[in-house]
Amino acid sequence: MCTHADHTIHRARHHFGWDNAIAPVMHVEPGARLTFECLDAAGGHFTPQSTVADIATLASETINPVTGPVFVEGAEPGDALKVTIEAFEPSGFGWTANIPGFGLLADQFPDPALHLWRYDVTAREPALFGAHARVPLKPFAGTIGVAPAAPGQHSVVPPRRVGGNLDIRDLAAGTTLYLPVEVAGALFSIGDTHAAQGDGEVCGTAIESPMTVALTLDLVKQAGLSAPRFTTPGPVTRHLDGAGYEATTGVGPDLYRGARAALAGMIDLIVREHGLAPVDAYMLCSVCGDLRISEIVDAPNWVVAFYFPRAVFA
Amino acid sequence: MCTHADHTIHRARHHFGWDNAIAPVMHVEPGARLTFECLDAAGGHFTPQSTVADIATLASETINPVTGPVFVEGAEPGDALKVTIEAFEPSGFGWTANIPGFGLLADQFPDPALHLWRYDVTAREPALFGAHARVPLKPFAGTIGVAPAAPGQHSVVPPRRVGGNLDIRDLAAGTTLYLPVEVAGALFSIGDTHAAQGDGEVCGTAIESPMTVALTLDLVKQAGLSAPRFTTPGPVTRHLDGAGYEATTGVGPDLYRGARAALAGMIDLIVREHGLAPVDAYMLCSVCGDLRISEIVDAPNWVVAFYFPRAVFA
Repeated sequence: MCTHADHTIHRARHHFGWDNAIAPVMHVEPGARLTFECLDAAGGHFTPQSTVADIATLASETINPVTGPVFVEGAEPGDALKVTIEAFEPSGFGWTANIPGFGLLADQFPDPALHLWRYDVTAREPALFGAHARVPLKPFAGTIGVAPAAPGQHSVVPPRRVGGNLDIRDLAAGTTLYLPVEVAGALFSIGDTHAAQGDGEVCGTAIESPMTVALTLDLVKQAGLSAPRFTTPGPVTRHLDGAGYEATTGVGPDLYRGARAALAGMIDLIVREHGLAPVDAYMLCSVCGDLRISEIVDAPNWVVAFYFPRAVFA
Repeated sequence: MCTHADHTIHRARHHFGWDNAIAPVMHVEPGARLTFECLDAAGGHFTPQSTVADIATLASETINPVTGPVFVEGAEPGDALKVTIEAFEPSGFGWTANIPGFGLLADQFPDPALHLWRYDVTAREPALFGAHARVPLKPFAGTIGVAPAAPGQHSVVPPRRVGGNLDIRDLAAGTTLYLPVEVAGALFSIGDTHAAQGDGEVCGTAIESPMTVALTLDLVKQAGLSAPRFTTPGPVTRHLDGAGYEATTGVGPDLYRGARAALAGMIDLIVREHGLAPVDAYMLCSVCGDLRISEIVDAPNWVVAFYFPRAVFA
């Protein structure tokens, strides 16, 4: 890792779920540069030797371990925690799964499926999916957040106004993220690192991959921020947009149903044109395809589009 | 227009709403190259001399005139009409309005507002919005579709599985669009041309601008297409993504509310950082900002993000 961190928080210092009573693993001053070792979303459950049968033994109570929490001195409710995401050191191993009951088309894909990835950590070459599909990589942390004010244990699965399992593909190296602080010290944690994901994370998993993350934590006092926001230093899709897109649409009065229809249309197209099994097309869409809202004003019908980058099959 | 069209359909040959009983203005063979003169969404109601008072006299029954319909020989229900969009000849004049009762934040912006644009048609330089904001242009047709099978008159406002008022920003020059055919001859019409728009068209209008469009109409027999789909020949955001994005989020169980929250957050940010009036920030978001679904699987909360291109204020 070519950064000079003030501190390293090791992967053993992780917790499950959000709870502002969890004791901080470290106290830092604003401006601290930190390195976090992050486990993947399954906490190491999957290995290069795993098979689809291993999905059945995934324990929901130990999903998405996050490394932390870090107490930032001076952080108070009403402030924003400014997280400058600097670099990722990927591990080279990843997995994507269709987990029964989870995902945008869970009703259509009831059976478990698992794809294991091995990718080049130096050149960051696109990762191979089968014989022809090549998925460009863009590492980021799926879960990044601070502790909520509400007492007690809160599931790590849903994201919140304090962040958490945001799964925002563009929280990549160079991006600055602002999170609303709700408790003294903010209590920042991070994990669930992904080597690649499309907007939507439609099958429920990305290229899930353990990784080390370098970042700086700083404060904006009394920021009055109502939800996470971020600034990217440059374009966000150039790792995959060079050959353009295939796009399918869902047209109707409900955005969620529109997203399902657009995705189902893309899976059909990929199956027909490239001969993938439907569940493989579904997982491939999750790691590199994007859900966009094309229009949300022409009542009563909105248009959701699913964009699949043609470079993946080029 | 540097294309060699077989036929030109003049702007006088337009109709209001969709009705498969409207007589075709022309019959063409598959493969025909056509030029359509398109009126803007208000049919010429606004001119460079217009003021905000002119919004009150906008007649809803003459909104979104479309040029056509064109009967494509051999087109039958179950086929797809393949529309290869080749070129746009913009007029240089455009308008963006906040029309009371229309738009994603209609409840928050009850008063009419109008912004008039004059843009360079040759160099396609970004169009100025106030003293500092410059909006990159990417012309496309907001309304593009074929006649529905259901008899009678249908409003032009909502898009349908046969297309229509799709308002998809990336239906620009070079893109191929496939539309499900529901009636003999397809009955293709086009209009509502835009010089620029963001994904979502959040205030309800884009840079609305009369324009001439060159395209080719062809058929894919028995395509089995359930909704519009399209293929772009290359990247879709390079006209505006060079300086990256500011992004705000809406986190919660409803995508529509999430989109509203993300947009409201961006309007607040633009007002605070650039001093625009809120309604101007709203209209600016509509012509160049994008709504994306970052995640739609971490139940019960989804993340919608609004991406505003920083190049606009660079």
